[in-house]
Amino acid sequence: MTIEEQIEFLKKGTVDFIREEDLKAKLERSQKTGKPLRIKLGADPTAPDIHLGHTVVIRKLKAFQELGHTVIFLIGSFTGMIGDPSGKNATRPPLSRQEIDANAETYKAQIFKLLDPEKTEIRFNSEWMDEFDAADFVKLTSRITVSQILERDDFKKRMREERPISMHELLYPLVQGYDSVALESDVELGGTDQTFNLLVGRSLQREYEQEPQVIITTPLLEGTDGVDKMSKSLGNYIGIDEPADEMFGKIMSISDELMWRYYGLLTDLSIDEIGELKQKCQSEELNPRNVKIYLAKLIIKDFYSEEGANQAELNFINQFSKGNLPDEIEEMKITSGDYKIADLLLKTQMVESKGEAKRLIKQGGVKVNEEKVAHAGIYVIVNSSIGTLLQVGKRKFLKVIAK
Amino acid sequence: MTIEEQIEFLKKGTVDFIREEDLKAKLERSQKTGKPLRIKLGADPTAPDIHLGHTVVIRKLKAFQELGHTVIFLIGSFTGMIGDPSGKNATRPPLSRQEIDANAETYKAQIFKLLDPEKTEIRFNSEWMDEFDAADFVKLTSRITVSQILERDDFKKRMREERPISMHELLYPLVQGYDSVALESDVELGGTDQTFNLLVGRSLQREYEQEPQVIITTPLLEGTDGVDKMSKSLGNYIGIDEPADEMFGKIMSISDELMWRYYGLLTDLSIDEIGELKQKCQSEELNPRNVKIYLAKLIIKDFYSEEGANQAELNFINQFSKGNLPDEIEEMKITSGDYKIADLLLKTQMVESKGEAKRLIKQGGVKVNEEKVAHAGIYVIVNSSIGTLLQVGKRKFLKVIAK
Repeated sequence: MTIEEQIEFLKKGTVDFIREEDLKAKLERSQKTGKPLRIKLGADPTAPDIHLGHTVVIRKLKAFQELGHTVIFLIGSFTGMIGDPSGKNATRPPLSRQEIDANAETYKAQIFKLLDPEKTEIRFNSEWMDEFDAADFVKLTSRITVSQILERDDFKKRMREERPISMHELLYPLVQGYDSVALESDVELGGTDQTFNLLVGRSLQREYEQEPQVIITTPLLEGTDGVDKMSKSLGNYIGIDEPADEMFGKIMSISDELMWRYYGLLTDLSIDEIGELKQKCQSEELNPRNVKIYLAKLIIKDFYSEEGANQAELNFINQFSKGNLPDEIEEMKITSGDYKIADLLLKTQMVESKGEAKRLIKQGGVKVNEEKVAHAGIYVIVNSSIGTLLQVGKRKFLKVIAK
Repeated sequence: MTIEEQIEFLKKGTVDFIREEDLKAKLERSQKTGKPLRIKLGADPTAPDIHLGHTVVIRKLKAFQELGHTVIFLIGSFTGMIGDPSGKNATRPPLSRQEIDANAETYKAQIFKLLDPEKTEIRFNSEWMDEFDAADFVKLTSRITVSQILERDDFKKRMREERPISMHELLYPLVQGYDSVALESDVELGGTDQTFNLLVGRSLQREYEQEPQVIITTPLLEGTDGVDKMSKSLGNYIGIDEPADEMFGKIMSISDELMWRYYGLLTDLSIDEIGELKQKCQSEELNPRNVKIYLAKLIIKDFYSEEGANQAELNFINQFSKGNLPDEIEEMKITSGDYKIADLLLKTQMVESKGEAKRLIKQGGVKVNEEKVAHAGIYVIVNSSIGTLLQVGKRKFLKVIAK
C-alpha cells in the first residue's frame, strides 16, 4: 500500500484525524527507518467486559498492526488503585494489584481475539506514576492552564450548572496525557468522548519536547436498539465473550439501517464492498436478511472460527424452524461468488433446468435460509464465511458452502 | 490572665478571628491539660529581609508565646525548591537545599529578636512533601472542589479577565493547607491577604479528621509614606536589620496619624495606654514629637537593647542640633511616670521654684528634647525606655532617665 492508501485504510469509519499531515509524516518516516509507530489505546482498569462497541477502536488498532506498527494497550492502573479518593462514589473502591493483574489477563484474553499478541505491548500507567513525586506533579500541572482543562465538555457543563467538580478530577486528564509522554506514543486512539483527553496528551508531549501524537477518534457504536450508545448498563450490547449463538441472535435483531453501520464499523469490508451490498439490497437482488446473516457470520468469525460462525447460523435457523428441517442436511462446496438463485439451483442440481427453477420460485416453492424467494432475479452470496441453506419443495435441502 | 483576658490580649490589632469560640475552647483545653497550643506561621523560603510590616504578625506569635504556647515557623521549602515550574517566571529559579538552609538561618537571626527560641519550632514543608507520592496528591486534591479554589480573589479576578492561571497554581494553596494537617496546628496566623489560604488549611484539617485550626489575620502595615503597604520594592519600609539610627530616623519621619497605627501594631502598649497618649496629645499635654520619639525607642528596643534605643535617640537629636549641645550631658535617674514639666524641673533642681519654671517657660527658655515648651501644663513621659533631655536657658542640660 502507498502511504495515501494506508491513510485511506486507517481513516475508514473514524471521526477525527488530528492531523492527517502529521500521520502522513510519521508513516513516511516509519517506512524509511523501518521503525514501527507506537499506537496507544488507554483502557479502564476495572473489570473488563468488552462488547462490540469497544471493538470499533480495537479494530482500528488491528489495522495499524496489519501495517506493521506496535500497539500499546495501556491499563490505567494508577487511577484504578486510587479508586475514588473523595470517597463519595462507593461503586469505585480502589483495586488491588492482584485485581488489576487479573483484569489485565481478562483484557488480554479478549483483545487478542482481534489483536496480534506479538505486536502488542500491555502496559500499566502505575509503572511511571508510582515513581512520580509531589514535585513531578507540580511540574506536570504547570504545563497546562485551568481554562484549558475546564474547556472539557463535562467540566464546562458542571461549572455552568454549578455542580461540584473535585480538584482531583482535573488531574486525571493530565495523568492520561502524561501517559503519552511516558510511552512516547505516535498515535492515540479513542472514542469521540475521549477527544479532549487525547488532545491533552498531544499538548503535553509538545511541552515535554516530544513530537505530538496523532489523535484518531472512532464513533460511538449504537447498541442493538439503534438508539443509544452500546452499553452494558442499557442492555443493548453484544459482548465479545458471549456464546456465538447469542451473538448471532442479537445481530439478527438489529434494524436493516443499523446493519450498514455495523458493516462499516465492525467488519473489514471496504467502503466499496459495503456500497455494493447495499445497492443490491436496494435493487432487491439480495435479501436483507441474508445480508444480515452474512454480517453476523463475519463478526462472529473474528471471535470464534469460521466453523463456529457457520454452526451459529445453523443453530439460528433451526431455532426458528423447529420440526421443519431434517436432522442432517447435505453440504456442497462450490466456488465462492454471488449467484443468481436460478443459476445456483441448477448448478447444485436442485433443479433440472432454469425453467423449472423459475416456475418453482413463482409457486413459492424455493427458500433460501428458510425464507421464500420472491423472484428469480435474487442473488445469493456464497463465500468462505457464508453457508447458505437452499430448499426446494418440502423435502429437498442443501447447504452450499464456498470452497 | 483569664481566658477572656487572653483573648482580648490576642485580639489586639487583628482583623479576622475565625472563630473566637474555637479559640476559647482550645485555650481552655490547653489550660486544663497543660499542653501548649501549636501556632503556625508560614514563610516564603526566598531570601528573607524582615521589615516592620512582617513584625505585626510575628508580634502576635510572641503574644501566644507569652501565654506559654508553641510557635511553628514554617518555611515553604517544598515550593521554593520547585521554583516556577512553568519556567515563565525567570525571577523564581528553584532554590537549592543549601540556599534554603542559609535563608532559614537568616530568618532565625531576625525572628529570634522577637521570639523565644525555646518555644519556637523551625520546620520545612519538604519534610512531608518530599514523601508525598502521586496517589497522596490525588487524594489531597480530592478533598476540595474546583469552585472552592477558584473562589480565591486573585484567581477569580484572573478568570474574569481571562488571564491564564496555570494548573499548578491551584495546588499551592492546597499544599499550604496540608501543612496545617501535617503540623496539626491549632492556630494559623497570616496577613489579611492570606485569609483564603488559611481557610483551606482549616477545611483540609476537617477533611483529614483533625480539629480545624483557628485563623487569625493581621492587617497589612502601611509603609513610612502612610499610603501603600510597607514593602521593600516601594522603598517605604523599615527593615529590622537596619542600624538603630536609621530606624529611628525613619520612624520619626512618619505622620502623626500613622504614629497611632504603629503604636497599635508594633508595640505592646495596651489599647487603653495608647488611648491615653493620644488624648494627651490632643489636649496638648504631650508634644507629638516626643510621643513619636517614645514610639521609636519602644520599637528599636525590641531589636536592639534599651541602651541602643537611647543612643539612637541621642544620635538623632544631635544630628539636628549640631554645635548646640555640650559633648557630655549629666544624667539623673528618677521614678518613672508622667510629670508636669514645672514639677519635673523642680524635682531635678533645674529651677529653684515652680514660679521660676513657669516664668522661664513663658519666656521660651525651656526645651524638652530640644523643642521649646509652649506652656506649663505639658507632661513629660519618663519611663524605663525613655530618656528625656531637659534644657533650661542656654547652658543647663540634664538627661532624665527612669529608675
